Amino acid sequence: MTRDDPCPPSSADLLLFTPGPLTTSRTVKEAMLRDVGSRDAAFIATVARIRERLLADAGVSQAAGYEAVLMQGSGTFGIESVIISAVPRDGKLLVLANGAYGERIARIAEVAGIDSTVLRSPEDQPVEPAQTEATLSADPAITHVAAVHCETTTGLLNPIDEIGAIVRSHGRAYIVDAMSSFGAIPIDAGTTGIDFLVSSANKCIEGVPGFSFVIANRDALLACESSARSVSLDLHAQWRGLEKDGQFRFTPPTHAILAFEQALSELDDEGGVSGRAQRYTANHRALLEGMQAMGFRPYLTPERQSYIITSFHYPTHPSFSFPSFYDRLARLGFVIYPGKVSQAECFRIGTIGRIFEPDVRQLLTAVRAVLDEMGVRDGS
Amino acid sequence: MTRDDPCPPSSADLLLFTPGPLTTSRTVKEAMLRDVGSRDAAFIATVARIRERLLADAGVSQAAGYEAVLMQGSGTFGIESVIISAVPRDGKLLVLANGAYGERIARIAEVAGIDSTVLRSPEDQPVEPAQTEATLSADPAITHVAAVHCETTTGLLNPIDEIGAIVRSHGRAYIVDAMSSFGAIPIDAGTTGIDFLVSSANKCIEGVPGFSFVIANRDALLACESSARSVSLDLHAQWRGLEKDGQFRFTPPTHAILAFEQALSELDDEGGVSGRAQRYTANHRALLEGMQAMGFRPYLTPERQSYIITSFHYPTHPSFSFPSFYDRLARLGFVIYPGKVSQAECFRIGTIGRIFEPDVRQLLTAVRAVLDEMGVRDGS
Repeated sequence: MTRDDPCPPSSADLLLFTPGPLTTSRTVKEAMLRDVGSRDAAFIATVARIRERLLADAGVSQAAGYEAVLMQGSGTFGIESVIISAVPRDGKLLVLANGAYGERIARIAEVAGIDSTVLRSPEDQPVEPAQTEATLSADPAITHVAAVHCETTTGLLNPIDEIGAIVRSHGRAYIVDAMSSFGAIPIDAGTTGIDFLVSSANKCIEGVPGFSFVIANRDALLACESSARSVSLDLHAQWRGLEKDGQFRFTPPTHAILAFEQALSELDDEGGVSGRAQRYTANHRALLEGMQAMGFRPYLTPERQSYIITSFHYPTHPSFSFPSFYDRLARLGFVIYPGKVSQAECFRIGTIGRIFEPDVRQLLTAVRAVLDEMGVRDGS
Repeated sequence: MTRDDPCPPSSADLLLFTPGPLTTSRTVKEAMLRDVGSRDAAFIATVARIRERLLADAGVSQAAGYEAVLMQGSGTFGIESVIISAVPRDGKLLVLANGAYGERIARIAEVAGIDSTVLRSPEDQPVEPAQTEATLSADPAITHVAAVHCETTTGLLNPIDEIGAIVRSHGRAYIVDAMSSFGAIPIDAGTTGIDFLVSSANKCIEGVPGFSFVIANRDALLACESSARSVSLDLHAQWRGLEKDGQFRFTPPTHAILAFEQALSELDDEGGVSGRAQRYTANHRALLEGMQAMGFRPYLTPERQSYIITSFHYPTHPSFSFPSFYDRLARLGFVIYPGKVSQAECFRIGTIGRIFEPDVRQLLTAVRAVLDEMGVRDGS
């Protein structure tokens, strides 16, 4: 089986079928073989190009009133920076939650002392537009609404467009956690009415971990001035710093940023977001068909399932043990991911990163071999 | 001139005479040519080894009651994580400040709503043990004292041992920002009585930027439970996560961490902290002698000056312009750093990172050539 990949990852490593960090191309990693000064003109130009390309990948531009801000740390740092910078002292946040990442947003608000309310849906159901509408109508104190696009807990895709229309019609600000979807699922921040979209370097853009980024409506960003409860995570100050002289306020992860520019070029080479969506869709389809053929049952119904990551129920056979299943697959070169669903025993398999359909087929062969080794008849 | 360097940096890049990001060895960067899963057993073992080695480099150990915690983001994120996690809701912070980094700690406390007081010394003077003693005697509400070891604003070395003895005698907790000193200036956290020491991956350990780390007295760390004003920067929760299963709570910068383990090995190969201190001292001595021979005047008196970074007054010659001086040196392959002193026109030259005395001599030759190009007679 040949890989149709102009930028293969290093062959020595296990392939990562996870929600991230992901397998990246060799060329993305090689972009890190340099030390650049954080105040150097060439590095500043790199950061400027990255910010511009991120806007384009979100379907917006500076001219259309949007800004891209990079923030050191993991995706959660980016989410926290938006929540603690955007919601004013007298504001109130509505969190739409149907998994661990929605709950994490609620927890961030709680710890920061931000008034908030959580509208929960079951983990196997999308968040509810009608209930969102009713909540916003009933509570005029709510100033901001936060939703998770692809809930990585399960792989479920929430209706961010429909929610966006409701939030906009009520004149509230809209925060979208697009951590595991941005770059692979087309999003038009303008049309959807997103004021703050957050994602991370090491997800579907296929960079390495080290920073997150925020696509923000400029007016909404300007309204963040002096609201932040943190110096490091002050989104407005970070933006102002980048605008002033192109530099980060505090040391940037220069190597991860060099890798990210290369990753953005490779995204373009693949045909942009729609090209990447095609590859991931093919990865997901091959995975789902192959796993179902072995009897594995996906946790979500097909219409709710993203092509980003898929949760499967544990097989019921008494010889199945997830730690053993995981370790045996890792020994064969494939890293999968534990489950995070609270009400069901599941594991997860991601179909994002520098992996291709032939890789998925090799994983499926390995899963079959490991079931046989473990004496588990099938995945049911 | 030959470089006595078993691990040279890539030849294509400019040499960085800055406070960081720094020039790193080729082998440190090559350690990033891998993608590893953040929950992978091998990666978890790497993180555990790093935490243990950091304790040893601080002269302490788990058995002696200390813990090492890694925190995503730049050094400032690490500082903020300590301040907003360690000082309880009814606590009060005394900040000893004689430069921008002391002021930054004060700003972090202010934004977090932490009661604090700042004891300021002039930027060319060390922070004052006698005044610290008097302040602690006068204000029993103070629970925590924060000091900066090497104030990177100037390159000044503060008397953290003397301050530590006073803080300890008053029974307060002691926070030390050792950002630009740890790994190059011997520190014994136990003897000095440091409860929280903060540094960063891309300083004197010579890793790449992406995370900071905290060496903490375990009892002091345990006292942080539930105090944090942030989810991302919760030091206690981060530690608990690492202790529970060896994993980060949120995506770690896996590549920067792989590089850091290699950097720690190269620190050992160089003879540990004292070996590195020798090289940096030689770098600094060569720099100071060469610059003074050209008439440049250091900002600090010799007894206050660290071998980490040195501030020089601008030459008074009317043809001198710092932007032009900087750009011309960069074109010759050397990156220096702007000044940060508030009361004097200075620039800075760092002598840390993967640079050696012959590199410093090449920089000096370039400085002489650039002065000639600019028509500046000398550095006075």
